[in-house]
Amino acid sequence: MKFGGTSMAGTERIRRVANIVRAQAAKGDEVAVVVSAMAGETDRLVGFCREANALYDPAEYDVVVASGEQVTSGLLALTLQAMGCNARSWLGWQVPIRTDDAHAKARIEEIDAPALIAAMQSGQIAVIPGFQGVTPDGRVTTLGRGGSDTSAVAVAAAVKADRCDIYTDVDGVYTTDPRIVAKARKLKNVTYEEMLELASVGSKVLQTRSVSLAMKEKVRVQVLSSFVDQNAPDADSLPGTMIVSDEELAKITEAKISQEGLDMERQLITGIAADKNEAKITLTRVADRPGAVAAIFGPLAAASINVDMIIQNIAKDKGETDVTFTVPKADLLRAQTLLEERKEAIGYFRMIADDKVAKISVVGVGMRSHAGVAATMFKALADRGINVQAISTSEIKISVLIDADETELAVRVLHSAYELDAAA
Amino acid sequence: MKFGGTSMAGTERIRRVANIVRAQAAKGDEVAVVVSAMAGETDRLVGFCREANALYDPAEYDVVVASGEQVTSGLLALTLQAMGCNARSWLGWQVPIRTDDAHAKARIEEIDAPALIAAMQSGQIAVIPGFQGVTPDGRVTTLGRGGSDTSAVAVAAAVKADRCDIYTDVDGVYTTDPRIVAKARKLKNVTYEEMLELASVGSKVLQTRSVSLAMKEKVRVQVLSSFVDQNAPDADSLPGTMIVSDEELAKITEAKISQEGLDMERQLITGIAADKNEAKITLTRVADRPGAVAAIFGPLAAASINVDMIIQNIAKDKGETDVTFTVPKADLLRAQTLLEERKEAIGYFRMIADDKVAKISVVGVGMRSHAGVAATMFKALADRGINVQAISTSEIKISVLIDADETELAVRVLHSAYELDAAA
Repeated sequence: MKFGGTSMAGTERIRRVANIVRAQAAKGDEVAVVVSAMAGETDRLVGFCREANALYDPAEYDVVVASGEQVTSGLLALTLQAMGCNARSWLGWQVPIRTDDAHAKARIEEIDAPALIAAMQSGQIAVIPGFQGVTPDGRVTTLGRGGSDTSAVAVAAAVKADRCDIYTDVDGVYTTDPRIVAKARKLKNVTYEEMLELASVGSKVLQTRSVSLAMKEKVRVQVLSSFVDQNAPDADSLPGTMIVSDEELAKITEAKISQEGLDMERQLITGIAADKNEAKITLTRVADRPGAVAAIFGPLAAASINVDMIIQNIAKDKGETDVTFTVPKADLLRAQTLLEERKEAIGYFRMIADDKVAKISVVGVGMRSHAGVAATMFKALADRGINVQAISTSEIKISVLIDADETELAVRVLHSAYELDAAA
Repeated sequence: MKFGGTSMAGTERIRRVANIVRAQAAKGDEVAVVVSAMAGETDRLVGFCREANALYDPAEYDVVVASGEQVTSGLLALTLQAMGCNARSWLGWQVPIRTDDAHAKARIEEIDAPALIAAMQSGQIAVIPGFQGVTPDGRVTTLGRGGSDTSAVAVAAAVKADRCDIYTDVDGVYTTDPRIVAKARKLKNVTYEEMLELASVGSKVLQTRSVSLAMKEKVRVQVLSSFVDQNAPDADSLPGTMIVSDEELAKITEAKISQEGLDMERQLITGIAADKNEAKITLTRVADRPGAVAAIFGPLAAASINVDMIIQNIAKDKGETDVTFTVPKADLLRAQTLLEERKEAIGYFRMIADDKVAKISVVGVGMRSHAGVAATMFKALADRGINVQAISTSEIKISVLIDADETELAVRVLHSAYELDAAA
């Protein structure tokens, strides 16, 4: 079970968390809980580090900021004890959660925790601070902001958990953002790959790293809300969204078909996401010769600027072409400066930048085996006069770039077009 | 070097501390620094623990409260680095500072720290959180409130330090409280035993445990102020009070006599302390028979109530006697209840309690070899009409119990009587 900073903000909220944990343990389950720092605490500690040293040493930064989760793990253990539960905290170095030595953005390498497992088997609830680990030479590390989700999945893999329940301030993964589409449906199941595509295009329910790790380690992850009624039954009867493998999803679907005797074939499209964090750059009249494209994208790659969608218009005449691509909004200025400096070398006529764009994606494992998904998308958008500026596809995702003002309209149109709307 | 919570309260103050540390290291000294949590932080964390669980598990309490020193040790390392110093933090479990498993009041058992010593020898400043350690089975402990002084002395012993400098909000140990006697003099030297007696009777410059440990491990401890001018020279040229062994004190005195050719024999009395934390209980007309005294003090001892001064008046008639003794003020109510319950068994007429008393002590190793110290005390007090209610003595201390209203008067009278006043 994993609880975030909002759930851990203060002793009163920690008591709510303890109630949920106790209910799960009372069923006879062996439970480990991974916790974040109190909301706001990590920012406070980071502020201290910046005041102490603007160019701070990440190893000492880790010592300071890891203390936030140390506090909440001790407090949750105390609160569980006050309710009569057997509980103890296990700090990163005590488990141990072994990481590399890339301080402030460490990666978990190994969790070999026989003592933790023995304690859990004896009926003791283990409370583990998220976000922290220890290097081979025994120094404190942190996994980078939001790393507690990754801690939870890694611990779940280490103890061979049946399930990793991530409690958040939403109650699951939806077909799209419910603030945009009121009829968005909560998904019972979603595959790791779908979740990764949804996360990478702006549906930030879970940290992307944690989903990759869950896929690699085959950990079943459930997303559910920590703001449930205190008297509500436990997680098993209040399901959120379960993130599973393709194989498990296939089994679940099959079981439903045979049990319910219905044609329950899963919908083609799982969800629709919008991402407003990209910006578009067009270079006009680029020479249509070998090496021109390399001259554009080589320097951007060298500067670690991630180029996403690329389209090259058909050369109109005289061997010239327009090249359009997207970069993260945060990198737009840097990219413009780089390309301005190389105007001669690349040989383009004009650079046009536009940060009023949105990337709309439809995601679903079902599209692997079905044609016509893209056609439905383009027709639905065209019917409402929405202009598609760029397209990119992966095996289970189709993304289009549109005018940012049309974001909500596009999401609603596609949600209906793929019949995702919940019954009224 | 050790700095307390007031010195570590916020990044601006930590910068002042770092300046002092840097000056010491710049002399070529190998330096380890022990730090407290920011003033107020430990109270905040203890408050969380109480809210979480009124009867908190001390093992989890330790996990929570030890985080305060973790934060300041990381921040001081960062601040030193910002000044161009080579520095790193060493948490209790990293050093390791091995303690027993008496959580929340652990005792240091061993510090075997080859890696720490090697780092210091390589010129790296070691920053160590005070107050914390680790049990044999790898759990976090704390040493009890004020334990950072003890951490500092223990680390000094482990690294075989030439000196342990304890920076406080006073600039040394005085002949008495300068708020009472304006002419109180700062002592250049004081012995461990004198310091212990002064600490136990209310002159709380250092935690008693840290002085005992320094005496056992023969660590030279210097008390000095952290609120010195930023541009002031280092600790060696700004001496506070050095706490040394009897032998070293004898050598220092001898050297002075031979150097300065004067009769520099050390004063008989080193200091005068007042303690208002005791209360007096008198039981009247106790049967003067074997076992009567045991019936009084047995139950108090069993309840861990520490009885200090005891006087038994001469039996007046019919084999009855009055018994007077002192207990800590905090235990007075408990003591009264216990004795009330046992009135029959003890066989006394009336119980009279008085918490308006003060214990005044004169302390000095010189009194071992000199008679007349007590006579001077009693005469000086009698001359000013101060009534002595009880007396207790040790090898280097004489204490009297008086009316609390006469505390300041008595201290001033005795300070003059033993010729401790500084030259005007």
